[in-house]
Amino acid sequence: MMGMEKQHSMEDENSEYLYNPDILKKLDFGKSPAKFNPFISAAHPGEDWMVVRPLQRADYDKGFLQLLSQLTSTGSISRKQFDERFTQMKSAGGYYVTVIEDKRISKIIGAATLTIEQKFIHNCSVRGRLEDVVVNDTYRGKQLGKLIVVTVSLLAQELGCYKMSLDCKDKLIKFYESLGYKLEPGNSNAMNMR
Amino acid sequence: MMGMEKQHSMEDENSEYLYNPDILKKLDFGKSPAKFNPFISAAHPGEDWMVVRPLQRADYDKGFLQLLSQLTSTGSISRKQFDERFTQMKSAGGYYVTVIEDKRISKIIGAATLTIEQKFIHNCSVRGRLEDVVVNDTYRGKQLGKLIVVTVSLLAQELGCYKMSLDCKDKLIKFYESLGYKLEPGNSNAMNMR
Repeated sequence: MMGMEKQHSMEDENSEYLYNPDILKKLDFGKSPAKFNPFISAAHPGEDWMVVRPLQRADYDKGFLQLLSQLTSTGSISRKQFDERFTQMKSAGGYYVTVIEDKRISKIIGAATLTIEQKFIHNCSVRGRLEDVVVNDTYRGKQLGKLIVVTVSLLAQELGCYKMSLDCKDKLIKFYESLGYKLEPGNSNAMNMR
Repeated sequence: MMGMEKQHSMEDENSEYLYNPDILKKLDFGKSPAKFNPFISAAHPGEDWMVVRPLQRADYDKGFLQLLSQLTSTGSISRKQFDERFTQMKSAGGYYVTVIEDKRISKIIGAATLTIEQKFIHNCSVRGRLEDVVVNDTYRGKQLGKLIVVTVSLLAQELGCYKMSLDCKDKLIKFYESLGYKLEPGNSNAMNMR
């Protein structure tokens, strides 16, 4: 019995979401300037084996970090480190790591993060940022890049962001323009210090 | 007696810092590529009536929001709203709103914010962002823009950020380059959706 209880509690913990998944069902994909063909949304991503949802602790075992490593170096992150970062993000609030899972093989095949920054300006408003967008390229042609970016962009609106921002490479400008993002004349420089 | 206690506790509350001020004293301004002439630092900002420190609750009455409104619209923020946002930022963590005060007149004359974003990539690293930089332009010639930006940039390093980022207008590129920020070729586009 004790063994079973232990197992049950670990399953509960594994299915813990980073944020409330209900908010994704509310998003109105008709409001996005993105053109989907065929029309898909976070609630109906086009295949019944696909789901768009918040990050879960179990995603450590579903290839979430391996997917991120297609984007940039992730290093070797232990289960303990992953859990700690998950807990820190959840307790801080403002972290909306969102994933697409292929439920047939229990693998994460797409991900994007919305972060929310609290401001004093604009009447104590909030600003959103799009971060760490990645889609497994063996799933090309399923509009997953568009799907995951529009999902977190609509989420930013739903959460009241006066502005949603991103930094990108030259080759991605057209893609983001098709989703409603703009290079603002005279004010579109992203600078870094490393 | 009760009146005195009340007053004392309100003073304590007013002097509450958003983050620990000790960290600003540790910053090594010799490490910055910025050229100061004469040499100044957060610990020694060049005038004995000037202090560089974290935001305090009392800054609501020291013109902090009026200074921000030189940057963009702030709206009409009540003391209660300001206090709530201060509390939210402090409890979330990762918000380093930093100010310069003219102690002769108890006014905030410069401000910049470092925000810290928690990541999974780069071994669960953190990324810094420079936000909401503003200096009262009646204090020109005192290197205050440089001082406040270098302060939060060194702070980002001290806090372990693998990268510190900012978005800026064309006319500010040279200024930020002189402080060590770079436009990375092919990867320096800041896009927004409003």
